[in-house]
Amino acid sequence: MKHLLFLIACLPLLASAQTPTDSIYIKKISDEIMRNGKAHDLLRQLTKGVGNRLSGSPQYNKAVQWGEASLKALGADKVFLQACMMPNWKRGGKDLAAVVMQNGKKTNRALDVLALGNSMGSGGKPVVAEVVAVQDFDEMEAKKDQLKGKIVYFNNQFNAANIQTFKSYGEAGQYRRSGPSRAAKYGAVGVMIRSLTEATDNHPHTGSTGYDEAYPKIPAIALGNEDANYIWSIAKKSSIKVSMTTNGFFEPDVEGHSVVAELTGTEFPNEYITVGGHLDSWDVGEGAHDDGAGIVQTMEILRTLKVLGYKPKRTLRFVLFANEENGMRGGNKYAEEAQKNKEKHIFALESDAGGFTPRGFGFTVSQAQLTKIQTWLPLLKPYGTDFLQAGGGGADIGPLNRLLGTPLAGLMPDSQRYFDIHHARSDVFENVNKRELHLGAVNMAALIYLVDQYGL
Amino acid sequence: MKHLLFLIACLPLLASAQTPTDSIYIKKISDEIMRNGKAHDLLRQLTKGVGNRLSGSPQYNKAVQWGEASLKALGADKVFLQACMMPNWKRGGKDLAAVVMQNGKKTNRALDVLALGNSMGSGGKPVVAEVVAVQDFDEMEAKKDQLKGKIVYFNNQFNAANIQTFKSYGEAGQYRRSGPSRAAKYGAVGVMIRSLTEATDNHPHTGSTGYDEAYPKIPAIALGNEDANYIWSIAKKSSIKVSMTTNGFFEPDVEGHSVVAELTGTEFPNEYITVGGHLDSWDVGEGAHDDGAGIVQTMEILRTLKVLGYKPKRTLRFVLFANEENGMRGGNKYAEEAQKNKEKHIFALESDAGGFTPRGFGFTVSQAQLTKIQTWLPLLKPYGTDFLQAGGGGADIGPLNRLLGTPLAGLMPDSQRYFDIHHARSDVFENVNKRELHLGAVNMAALIYLVDQYGL
Repeated sequence: MKHLLFLIACLPLLASAQTPTDSIYIKKISDEIMRNGKAHDLLRQLTKGVGNRLSGSPQYNKAVQWGEASLKALGADKVFLQACMMPNWKRGGKDLAAVVMQNGKKTNRALDVLALGNSMGSGGKPVVAEVVAVQDFDEMEAKKDQLKGKIVYFNNQFNAANIQTFKSYGEAGQYRRSGPSRAAKYGAVGVMIRSLTEATDNHPHTGSTGYDEAYPKIPAIALGNEDANYIWSIAKKSSIKVSMTTNGFFEPDVEGHSVVAELTGTEFPNEYITVGGHLDSWDVGEGAHDDGAGIVQTMEILRTLKVLGYKPKRTLRFVLFANEENGMRGGNKYAEEAQKNKEKHIFALESDAGGFTPRGFGFTVSQAQLTKIQTWLPLLKPYGTDFLQAGGGGADIGPLNRLLGTPLAGLMPDSQRYFDIHHARSDVFENVNKRELHLGAVNMAALIYLVDQYGL
Repeated sequence: MKHLLFLIACLPLLASAQTPTDSIYIKKISDEIMRNGKAHDLLRQLTKGVGNRLSGSPQYNKAVQWGEASLKALGADKVFLQACMMPNWKRGGKDLAAVVMQNGKKTNRALDVLALGNSMGSGGKPVVAEVVAVQDFDEMEAKKDQLKGKIVYFNNQFNAANIQTFKSYGEAGQYRRSGPSRAAKYGAVGVMIRSLTEATDNHPHTGSTGYDEAYPKIPAIALGNEDANYIWSIAKKSSIKVSMTTNGFFEPDVEGHSVVAELTGTEFPNEYITVGGHLDSWDVGEGAHDDGAGIVQTMEILRTLKVLGYKPKRTLRFVLFANEENGMRGGNKYAEEAQKNKEKHIFALESDAGGFTPRGFGFTVSQAQLTKIQTWLPLLKPYGTDFLQAGGGGADIGPLNRLLGTPLAGLMPDSQRYFDIHHARSDVFENVNKRELHLGAVNMAALIYLVDQYGL
């Protein structure tokens, strides 16, 4: 038993010597990307030339045009647009909020706020109400009889003790996702949340909320950490009134497109390997890490394989998915089309966790597939991949797994800085480091190469 | 044979279950630092309150006072200053350079430059000379007969293909360290180098050069990458003249101090464990990553162990070393005093590679010690340490190893961004991420804890 355990535990250590040509080819990939990579330049084009690109915005269509033209220029065998209907939320104007009364005394202390994505605005008129500040849902439930006509402030903070910040995001995210309706249930007229971030600045962070149709769709805003600290400190010792004006609304769904490029397989052209990120972003900042990084890493893999003259065995798909942020319509459509066309999708990889130094990959695959994949670890370690672990994928490729059972992987870059900039005005090109971005592309390209060579 | 190899390879995997109390205590350390850490605040004080702090500058003394007061306030059992004589190089004024002639035609295109540290200035008068641009020393040697009276420009670039950027730094560093004298040997009157960076901005990066006493001590400057690209592009197709004015000089050596704090050991007070960084910096930017990060991580470990009520077995020394950048006098003095006082130094750890996400530690220890240390890997992995490997230490603790044979370790954070800001005006507080900085302190504190508990 013990010997067997040793064998299993040591499998990754044994594989390294078995694939000298793979290690040489992956070094070629790495050298090409680290020396001549264009991902950083492409990201500058996307962020500075197009800017942020919410589904339904003119910029989103501009991003599609840019993506299509760029993928063609990089030498894809085929580039096509895949249409889908997208939700069409509009922020509708500048979101405003201020503390207007403290202990019955008029004041006017502006707050730097963003309405939550998909939230309904206050109809152009300010909502002015007393604030009930609570730490969490438990405290809100305890105060449910005091919420009628009030604005609820949720002070829930990121759990700084989690080393994996995505865990904290998942935990804190419930306040953004369901806080408005849970407060509306008790008659609240507005909701403020502490942004889902540990950033030491004051930028508010937007992101999707969703309403329970059973209750009024009340306005909801996010505060940056400094304003959140301020509200929490004064609301605990005094009664305050806040005025909030937001303008969000939905226009009818609109047609948009994912952009799909192919390198046609030379041995198994009917087996598809997909790599991608999402082309849309929230309407603040430049969507540089989220998910410009994933987009340009995807394009960089195509560029590099073309430059190296690589002839894939399987058909490689490079996909710039539509509408991840507030609808997932692009990813859903891609899987539906694959199902309709009876395509065989053997693997899909997404990069949607920022353009930071890669640490590893997470997989949604069978145990046998994971065991095979883990034999590749020594090939990836020199480039910063320290683990190939169970659990992972991406929002846009998830439907492929659900509809077709496609094995998935997600790039897992270092996560310490991601939520500092996520969905905030600080998610700009300048906050993406060229080497970190390119190194992510190296590891992704190497994984795609290995899956193409050996299947799963 | 194979079974033995399995056993050795698997040792790290076996240790995790053996030390549940250690894993619990390290989690306590991590929670305290990630939730309540003060390293980021201390770094703000050092960078914004003191600023950069070259040996011999008034700011260096201010930093010593700040360090002494802070270590006392954090509750060290003992804090003392350790005097050493330090070199006293002065930049002497603003470094200037411009392209003043191209193909015989006057022009005036300013270059953003910094004189290399320890370099001698042009005496207040511009050196104006034709430029001989070479890729490397080989090309310079081939052109040695053309260098008399000329300014040599070394275009050597960082090797972007190295995943470990310190390797590229070591390779490219020879041009900064010995370029001036190697050009002066053939009669050159000035040297320009491409800064030791891949940064996509134009900031010049300073750092130590050294002269060979056999040749004239000619002025030497570094160019940022944009200006370096410009010079290289025009010098290849036309003759250019550059004017450079620098003002560097040495004043007589001056007394300075390292700051040493202690937590006295409860079982083996005569066994010392040292953890530290260097308090001095170059005279540009704020010395935030280099090495403010190492300084405040060191202080954070003291703070955390005090808050947790930890009673060390051995005596822990927290050292803010003097004069790493252009003399190493603080580190040398510390080892000399240890030798003179017959102190038993069982381990020393340095953080001087930036306040970025930790990836692992490098060790200068015996094979037996390394084998023991590597059994601790499972305890550190949850906090981002992925390797405990041979090779590593730090400039300031190196003398302890050379004089006393002390085992050494160096924190190895992610290195992708380090040389973007190293020795440049961009090495400022704003470019240090709080979570990354604090996570480095977590891993350092855990390692110090383990060495204190179990020795080597």
